[in-house]
Amino acid sequence: MPVRVGVNGFGTIGKRVADAVARQPDLKLVGVAKTRPSFEARRAVDRGYPLFVAGAGDPGKFTSVGLPVAGRLQDLLGQVDVMVDATPEEVGRENRALYQSAGVRAVFQGGEEPDVAEASFNALANYEACRGKRSLRVVSCNTTGIARAVAVVEPRWGVDRWEVTLVRRAADPGESKRGPVDGIVPTLEIPSHHGPDARTIFPALSIATVAVVVPTTLMHVHVNHVRLHRAPSGTAELVAAFRASPRFHVFAPWEGVEGTPQVMEFARDRAGREGGLPPDMMENILWERGISVSDRDAYFFQAIHQESVVVPENVDAIRAMFELADGPTSIATTDRALGIARTAPASEVPPVRTRAASP
Amino acid sequence: MPVRVGVNGFGTIGKRVADAVARQPDLKLVGVAKTRPSFEARRAVDRGYPLFVAGAGDPGKFTSVGLPVAGRLQDLLGQVDVMVDATPEEVGRENRALYQSAGVRAVFQGGEEPDVAEASFNALANYEACRGKRSLRVVSCNTTGIARAVAVVEPRWGVDRWEVTLVRRAADPGESKRGPVDGIVPTLEIPSHHGPDARTIFPALSIATVAVVVPTTLMHVHVNHVRLHRAPSGTAELVAAFRASPRFHVFAPWEGVEGTPQVMEFARDRAGREGGLPPDMMENILWERGISVSDRDAYFFQAIHQESVVVPENVDAIRAMFELADGPTSIATTDRALGIARTAPASEVPPVRTRAASP
Amino acid sequence: MPVRVGVNGFGTIGKRVADAVARQPDLKLVGVAKTRPSFEARRAVDRGYPLFVAGAGDPGKFTSVGLPVAGRLQDLLGQVDVMVDATPEEVGRENRALYQSAGVRAVFQGGEEPDVAEASFNALANYEACRGKRSLRVVSCNTTGIARAVAVVEPRWGVDRWEVTLVRRAADPGESKRGPVDGIVPTLEIPSHHGPDARTIFPALSIATVAVVVPTTLMHVHVNHVRLHRAPSGTAELVAAFRASPRFHVFAPWEGVEGTPQVMEFARDRAGREGGLPPDMMENILWERGISVSDRDAYFFQAIHQESVVVPENVDAIRAMFELADGPTSIATTDRALGIARTAPASEVPPVRTRAASP
Amino acid sequence: MPVRVGVNGFGTIGKRVADAVARQPDLKLVGVAKTRPSFEARRAVDRGYPLFVAGAGDPGKFTSVGLPVAGRLQDLLGQVDVMVDATPEEVGRENRALYQSAGVRAVFQGGEEPDVAEASFNALANYEACRGKRSLRVVSCNTTGIARAVAVVEPRWGVDRWEVTLVRRAADPGESKRGPVDGIVPTLEIPSHHGPDARTIFPALSIATVAVVVPTTLMHVHVNHVRLHRAPSGTAELVAAFRASPRFHVFAPWEGVEGTPQVMEFARDRAGREGGLPPDMMENILWERGISVSDRDAYFFQAIHQESVVVPENVDAIRAMFELADGPTSIATTDRALGIARTAPASEVPPVRTRAASP
Repeated sequence: MPVRVGVNGFGTIGKRVADAVARQPDLKLVGVAKTRPSFEARRAVDRGYPLFVAGAGDPGKFTSVGLPVAGRLQDLLGQVDVMVDATPEEVGRENRALYQSAGVRAVFQGGEEPDVAEASFNALANYEACRGKRSLRVVSCNTTGIARAVAVVEPRWGVDRWEVTLVRRAADPGESKRGPVDGIVPTLEIPSHHGPDARTIFPALSIATVAVVVPTTLMHVHVNHVRLHRAPSGTAELVAAFRASPRFHVFAPWEGVEGTPQVMEFARDRAGREGGLPPDMMENILWERGISVSDRDAYFFQAIHQESVVVPENVDAIRAMFELADGPTSIATTDRALGIARTAPASEVPPVRTRAASP
Repeated sequence: MPVRVGVNGFGTIGKRVADAVARQPDLKLVGVAKTRPSFEARRAVDRGYPLFVAGAGDPGKFTSVGLPVAGRLQDLLGQVDVMVDATPEEVGRENRALYQSAGVRAVFQGGEEPDVAEASFNALANYEACRGKRSLRVVSCNTTGIARAVAVVEPRWGVDRWEVTLVRRAADPGESKRGPVDGIVPTLEIPSHHGPDARTIFPALSIATVAVVVPTTLMHVHVNHVRLHRAPSGTAELVAAFRASPRFHVFAPWEGVEGTPQVMEFARDRAGREGGLPPDMMENILWERGISVSDRDAYFFQAIHQESVVVPENVDAIRAMFELADGPTSIATTDRALGIARTAPASEVPPVRTRAASP
Repeated sequence: MPVRVGVNGFGTIGKRVADAVARQPDLKLVGVAKTRPSFEARRAVDRGYPLFVAGAGDPGKFTSVGLPVAGRLQDLLGQVDVMVDATPEEVGRENRALYQSAGVRAVFQGGEEPDVAEASFNALANYEACRGKRSLRVVSCNTTGIARAVAVVEPRWGVDRWEVTLVRRAADPGESKRGPVDGIVPTLEIPSHHGPDARTIFPALSIATVAVVVPTTLMHVHVNHVRLHRAPSGTAELVAAFRASPRFHVFAPWEGVEGTPQVMEFARDRAGREGGLPPDMMENILWERGISVSDRDAYFFQAIHQESVVVPENVDAIRAMFELADGPTSIATTDRALGIARTAPASEVPPVRTRAASP
Repeated sequence: MPVRVGVNGFGTIGKRVADAVARQPDLKLVGVAKTRPSFEARRAVDRGYPLFVAGAGDPGKFTSVGLPVAGRLQDLLGQVDVMVDATPEEVGRENRALYQSAGVRAVFQGGEEPDVAEASFNALANYEACRGKRSLRVVSCNTTGIARAVAVVEPRWGVDRWEVTLVRRAADPGESKRGPVDGIVPTLEIPSHHGPDARTIFPALSIATVAVVVPTTLMHVHVNHVRLHRAPSGTAELVAAFRASPRFHVFAPWEGVEGTPQVMEFARDRAGREGGLPPDMMENILWERGISVSDRDAYFFQAIHQESVVVPENVDAIRAMFELADGPTSIATTDRALGIARTAPASEVPPVRTRAASP
């Protein structure tokens, strides 16, 4: 019997998580909750997702524009095993009591403080540690990107120090009101919150993050400098490790992908394939030419699609909570259902050494 | 037996036309031609489109990166009934002789001068006049948007004068090199070329177009002022006519679509539905609140997705050339195959009067 | 004895008006008022402008960072004959009673509703009608641009109909928070408020305005289509009239000014000349090649620098209120003091006919 | 007798250097050279700079639009002691022989390869080493920003390792054609060329630079991570050192400067002061809150105004070549003439230790 899932909030993250849940063989999307009618509410109806009215929302406003309503959030809570909370930042915390009193488990997003849930979660990094929890917090898009990269690098070469400059997108593509239009805004707090957030997943990681905001909507770009504990044989070893990992996509030089405009063009091109892959980029994006190793110093760029990178993680978080599968199985199941499963052979990939070897 | 189609050029337009052709019941995509390997070439292969090498391209460059090559453009020409030329501006003209000498019909794009083909084409506007032609030119994205709107308005109320300010996007989303980054660049030539281009479709139309370029990638926006020959009963009559027309999408106020960011968000949301609709907006986009009629003066905004609006027109152009169907049937077939067929009832739509009534 | 002027609000408009007032021979800048310390408050001090604390502002916050305070807004009111209110939209209305009870005249900005003052003002258009008023409202940047153009065109050829598409900048260059970053947002209200606002200056003008917002910070651009009452002899006649008018700058083709990036580059280049001209563009900007006349239909672009175009108008508004000079003399005095006085000969300029001749 | 200076190229850098030279007490601007008439050529004439025609330029094209010509570049060469070459990248190299055969010294810009001149130059860093040279190359804007910061930090605490992520502006404010409009483009070459370029000034510096390009026009922003050789007492020590250095400007928290939009707003506000300061930001810009020291790890942002930061360096390069003054005197003279001299007291500034103490 599939785990019954509700999604509260049907914006950038919520609608993607709902779609992703609906594709999984072992999960059932029971419904989604929204406070106001909009083109996105219509989308829920068009996709056949029962639509519930959240918060102080007025069901009459939905029905008067032809959107059928299946009930209130409270009704949805009575029909599900777990809620994915994709409401705006800090609303999730307010909803926590609601979920608890309904006896429903909950997945929160990275906009909430870590203590909103029993643990912070990333599928590649700490799936096992999150098994059986009653509440999890999927870390934010940027932290997810970092955690995945650490999960590839740390077990193989160890990490003495991880430095990231985050070049952050100012607004999402569907937003009209946020800026800047022209200008760079440094996040003056040093380190930015992303470093401490990464340590909710890797408590022992020595990491510093610094961020700037720039006027783009497409993706974040991370500039990573990692001081490794052991030197790889060369750049090719790192490239191979990233290429072999689930949820990583490494562009080759001949592909002509100069920057995030082409990455998202690739995502749009890919859309529709394999059972309806959305025009998203759920993987960490690297450039083969943008990976460089010199002795124990590794540098690499990675682009992170802020809208979708956490989507497969939300699915895996549910599986971890209900212990439906081990980590690698869950990741493989999720990615196959979403159409982003790796097909490349894993030969030449450097083996994972015991983590104990790193400091 | 389906008409056999080749596509020369596999960039923004070519790849979309190839996908659209591949979905049609009465057309067969034989192959696509490209000069250089790139992520887009890989996409052709991933979709199962035979890949031919165009121009001075080197097949070895494709095969060395794992992209199988089906032959040269010349080989493709021997296997098709018609080529859609989606090469960069002014290359189409150079290719014309090639297609002619191969005895193959050709569809050109609006970047070419009108005399590249026997006639300029828009499905809603002059399908019948283009039946049986050996070459057609699908007018550019902006002119397509204008021609469609004229095709809705002119037969119903007549047009004394049509004025358009075109607010044009500076670059496509997948481009890195074109600007401006911050600034507005007027197209100082008055009128812009779009007005004369619209008259290749509507020779008697009194139209003036003026254009500016602005730093966005998503869509063009047209500001239309139409002096009608006969006054509609009110704004609702115009709204109904647009709503009932194929290839028009009118957003209602409650949908919360403020501008082109939300229009393209809608397109991305819609993607994947109905057999793999791409994240495109092939319809003219209007806002119900952005349509205003006062006596014989009508004002309305329309947003035009420069990447995809000509795609269904390319399909219909092929049908017109080979007389596979009449216009309304071709449009309905195309749109159903692409997932953009109108489902709304056509009641309340003002009837088309005889065109003779307009000056 | 110079008229004593205070400026309330020291942001984009206020700081420019303060500088402009300080340069006039017949006006005296007594002080400026601000609610919070900032780099702009420091600028006031650096320029030697006495700094008063407005509203609920805390003087201690200024002095603790080394900014000397001359008193509260109330104190400033006791020392001036007139206040220029450059506070944020709708705050001006709240301040009106304050100015009245202090027996001080007031100049408001176009962000306020027209009834905030006895009359709306534009120096080229209705200076004489505003003489002796106790309160005036300088119309907004866009309406100022329109009013100036009407003031040049209407007396010479008459105006049957004026249509403007306003392509508006999304944010000012010094703003970080407003968007959109990528996208066009139509102002769905048709006509936009600019047309009615222009009629506060030209009550009989037949005008329609439609607006879109685009992601740029530099300038607005207006696309004008004017149906004239009498046909000019040709485009050259219009060009000459604009060139001869104060507060108009017409770029010649050889200058290589493609769009607003080069216009503001020109402004920056010009800065510092003639006694400290700021890097602003207080004139309406036209392109000779972007003016086109065909019989009675005139088309032209004009770019409007939203930050500074109203600055000379604020100065003239004060002179009109206190009847310090007639309109042409005030305009000439202001422009000479600001460094934007026209030096070109006025030959070839079409004469102004009696306004009665136009409908 | 002042050193006679010519400027070849009158674009972004050339026009600023010409203005700066014209203000110096010990230099004389003899003329500027340009290939084509434009609004910038008119500016030269308006400022009274004799205008010479460079390269294959046609003097008739200047005179026909009313721009008087003083001769050809060759004529200018006969009247000067030194040329500042501000021509587009790689043209400077071609001009080198021209200057040499005319017996004229030359200052080149950072767009040229280092071997174009006898030495690469930065005033704070290696003025003394450049005295008496016959040709110098002022390093690029980004390298100038880095070199200045190293010149402050290295003598005080020593540098074990300097890491910079450069977030680069895509185009200058006056450009229309360069993009991207929306997107981030990593400079895939790692390290970027800036690190090696900095070593033309500091040969022993251990530095790595990585760059991305973002859609802004205002400034570059550098994210610096410096591993110091000796720990400062705390962040305040670093702040004080930067604040005391010429050509550094550190914003305090109360000033409300969030990012580069406000920095350039500050620059525009400041313009006109002190004898005509242009709306430029010739200093390295830091934020007090954006400087952080933890033991020997220092992090700080700095914003670099690509258009003007090298301007005072060009002036000092001339003085070094002609041994008109020692470094500190030249810097002080330049900055006073340009209106950017530091006035803050230098108390609390950590002393410079002997450089020998650092590795």
